[in-house]
Amino acid sequence: MLGEGAVSTDPADLAAHAHDWWTLALLRQRTGDTFTLPAAVVRPASTEDVSVVLRWAQETRTPVVPFGGGSGVSGGAQAIEGSIALDVTRMDQIISVDHDALTVTAQAGIGGRTLEDDLEGRGLTLGHFPQSIDISTLGGWVAARSAGQKSARYGRLEDMVLGLEVVLPGGTVVRTRPAPASAAGPDLARLFIGSEGTLGVVTEATLAVRPAPRVVTHGAYAFAAFEEGLLAVRRVVQEELHPAVMRLYDETDVGIAFRDAAERPDGSLLVLRFEGDAIADAEERAIRDIVEAAGGKDLGPGLAERWWEHRNDAVGTFRQIMLDGLLGPAAAVDTMEVAGLWPSTDLYEGVRAALGSHADVVGCHSSHPYPQGTCLYFTFVFIGAKDDAAVEARYRAAWADAISATLAAGGTITHHHGVGLLKAPWLPAELGAGFEVLRAVKRALDPAGIMNPGKLGL
Amino acid sequence: MLGEGAVSTDPADLAAHAHDWWTLALLRQRTGDTFTLPAAVVRPASTEDVSVVLRWAQETRTPVVPFGGGSGVSGGAQAIEGSIALDVTRMDQIISVDHDALTVTAQAGIGGRTLEDDLEGRGLTLGHFPQSIDISTLGGWVAARSAGQKSARYGRLEDMVLGLEVVLPGGTVVRTRPAPASAAGPDLARLFIGSEGTLGVVTEATLAVRPAPRVVTHGAYAFAAFEEGLLAVRRVVQEELHPAVMRLYDETDVGIAFRDAAERPDGSLLVLRFEGDAIADAEERAIRDIVEAAGGKDLGPGLAERWWEHRNDAVGTFRQIMLDGLLGPAAAVDTMEVAGLWPSTDLYEGVRAALGSHADVVGCHSSHPYPQGTCLYFTFVFIGAKDDAAVEARYRAAWADAISATLAAGGTITHHHGVGLLKAPWLPAELGAGFEVLRAVKRALDPAGIMNPGKLGL
Repeated sequence: MLGEGAVSTDPADLAAHAHDWWTLALLRQRTGDTFTLPAAVVRPASTEDVSVVLRWAQETRTPVVPFGGGSGVSGGAQAIEGSIALDVTRMDQIISVDHDALTVTAQAGIGGRTLEDDLEGRGLTLGHFPQSIDISTLGGWVAARSAGQKSARYGRLEDMVLGLEVVLPGGTVVRTRPAPASAAGPDLARLFIGSEGTLGVVTEATLAVRPAPRVVTHGAYAFAAFEEGLLAVRRVVQEELHPAVMRLYDETDVGIAFRDAAERPDGSLLVLRFEGDAIADAEERAIRDIVEAAGGKDLGPGLAERWWEHRNDAVGTFRQIMLDGLLGPAAAVDTMEVAGLWPSTDLYEGVRAALGSHADVVGCHSSHPYPQGTCLYFTFVFIGAKDDAAVEARYRAAWADAISATLAAGGTITHHHGVGLLKAPWLPAELGAGFEVLRAVKRALDPAGIMNPGKLGL
Repeated sequence: MLGEGAVSTDPADLAAHAHDWWTLALLRQRTGDTFTLPAAVVRPASTEDVSVVLRWAQETRTPVVPFGGGSGVSGGAQAIEGSIALDVTRMDQIISVDHDALTVTAQAGIGGRTLEDDLEGRGLTLGHFPQSIDISTLGGWVAARSAGQKSARYGRLEDMVLGLEVVLPGGTVVRTRPAPASAAGPDLARLFIGSEGTLGVVTEATLAVRPAPRVVTHGAYAFAAFEEGLLAVRRVVQEELHPAVMRLYDETDVGIAFRDAAERPDGSLLVLRFEGDAIADAEERAIRDIVEAAGGKDLGPGLAERWWEHRNDAVGTFRQIMLDGLLGPAAAVDTMEVAGLWPSTDLYEGVRAALGSHADVVGCHSSHPYPQGTCLYFTFVFIGAKDDAAVEARYRAAWADAISATLAAGGTITHHHGVGLLKAPWLPAELGAGFEVLRAVKRALDPAGIMNPGKLGL
């Protein structure tokens, strides 16, 4: 029903669409466990193609797993028995850029870097820089409720979405009306943002963009303790100041993020990037005043400049540890990003202790601050296990305990990596009776249950 | 099933809960038309009470119309045959204020002014100042997706909501987890914000608050033409500058808002209020530079200071026109707030022309600017009709034509007044296939159809 070359059953293609970058999937890839492969990879070229596929899928009760960059880390793109992978990366066009309204409309399969580079060529920026920007897609960002490294200034992806095009199971195309704001009923776009492909397929989005900043500077500060730095971060955001990046590493995470021991400070490290225009100088000065009053010791801009250049190297390191034996044959690494209200110290202590009782190394940084709280991003590494089975057992125990600790401290179990399969067992605890609302919505919009079954526990 | 005094069938009580401040309802009040009265007014004292009522209502198939301040202007609180008015104003407590996380948790029935005054007494502000603040409730703000006069700095109500408590038909209590941000599935709170009581009853909300601003100043500028002023407004918000108020009146609306002809300028008027802290001076200077470069003529702060003091007098004037014959026996007034992407000039011209072909006076101001567009707030007055029947006919024609003009210009039919009954006939045109999504959600969450039937066309 589609054009030439839209359907593939090539074994390598199927294998490349069997899972995403979930650590557990990579562990199994390493141990040679057989994966459930999709029955086919389907590559629509248009919204109409997606509509045709979803109508057919509903009629034939075929499970559909939407697939973008495959860079998720929670198993949200994992194939299930008899499913098709709906790979939207042929739908990669920028449809329009509106310089009056400062918006861009693009197809869901466009790569994040391609989109940002195109905008920067026009003197604009989306300002959305997830660590995965080189390997993830706009549709994936919408599906997973993404947040980028500059969220303190530019907001989360959901704050940028003005309008969405979504294809429902059955093939109906829904287009929300792009508006700066509206009170015409609930915001239906928000129902699909974070739905991880369980309610429909995002095919297009209209996003707010900004003029590219004219002033970009950096700064770094040392703090004796992480908690002291956290207070500085909180004071800055609660004064409604908006550094592009304000990332605070604890003593262990400094060692993970900055390999050169001579370069990194003792204690906790605050990395700052400032972007701005007319009031950039005043804002930078105000931020530095608060940080210094809170005990930060100025380290100059160099550390932060190097951090910005190398910030996404961790993606490669992750692959080396998981697939190339960088830390030995039975090592593994994963990350967990939770969020809670200020002061967030109970959340920090609780999750760190829970992970630390299973993993060999646990580092944490406050990555995305808000006036009301922060994201705490933990990196945890298993090195000394005797084999992959032992790693997996410790891995599962670490996640279970860390999620319990998160909920006990009043936090949310995911800030921007999403739920997928990894966190699905705990979503009912996270949402309470809200999970029944979500299930009711799922049944209403996807009565045949074809959309990404099992993800979000749906 | 509730405590003493929770149910009233007193005729005056029923009459006071028969409708809100929708102009059409007031026209009928004036002409002595009989209203549909609620069968009873029910005043729960707690979330548990609301749960008891909704369980009973679902079992008995009794329509429930949630009622707060009754200050809506779109008929969202209008009684229907056999309905009860669920008046939540006994649930008016502030439950907690968190100075670390800068949040407040309050019950839905609290008055807007009471909430803001309490926060200001603690050195905080919510920053949400709808014109109705003295007569509206927190629950109504949530239900109608409200925006306040300072939204350019503090955001819309939906941006302030961190967590909601909602009772579903049947009595289930849903509490979303207050978090600074989350990716644990779609944001379920957003499903109820703007649902106008059609999906459940909001009983409690946790909101972001801020330290009260230390610096408050004002400014006013004259522009030769409205379009020229619009460009100045756009440039300010697209530079990510955030005046608390930036309101631009067209030549007619200046006369409506400023009765003293000696005081007001010829042409278009821009009213500014600045609120800030550490970088307040730099931000005010940057805003003034842009406004002056765009052709604004500085009028000094006095006009804006007086505007701030008297900005809500229009509520009283509205009542005088509608109920006391201020402009003659067969006069009427209403307001229409639409929003569209920049440059918004087609939207302005189109709606003004549509309203002007039926009403005697049409004024407009840009009330709530965003980087991507603005709200255009029209006031339209009928003076010369021969009787109330003629007013009503012109009124209906004006709305129909103005909404058509809004949709034709790509705008949204309501920015913050909501849909209610007034705009329900056009919600399918506004939402397209999204209206079917909304209907499916409604059927899923309220299978018995008891929640505020008919509102939003549901």
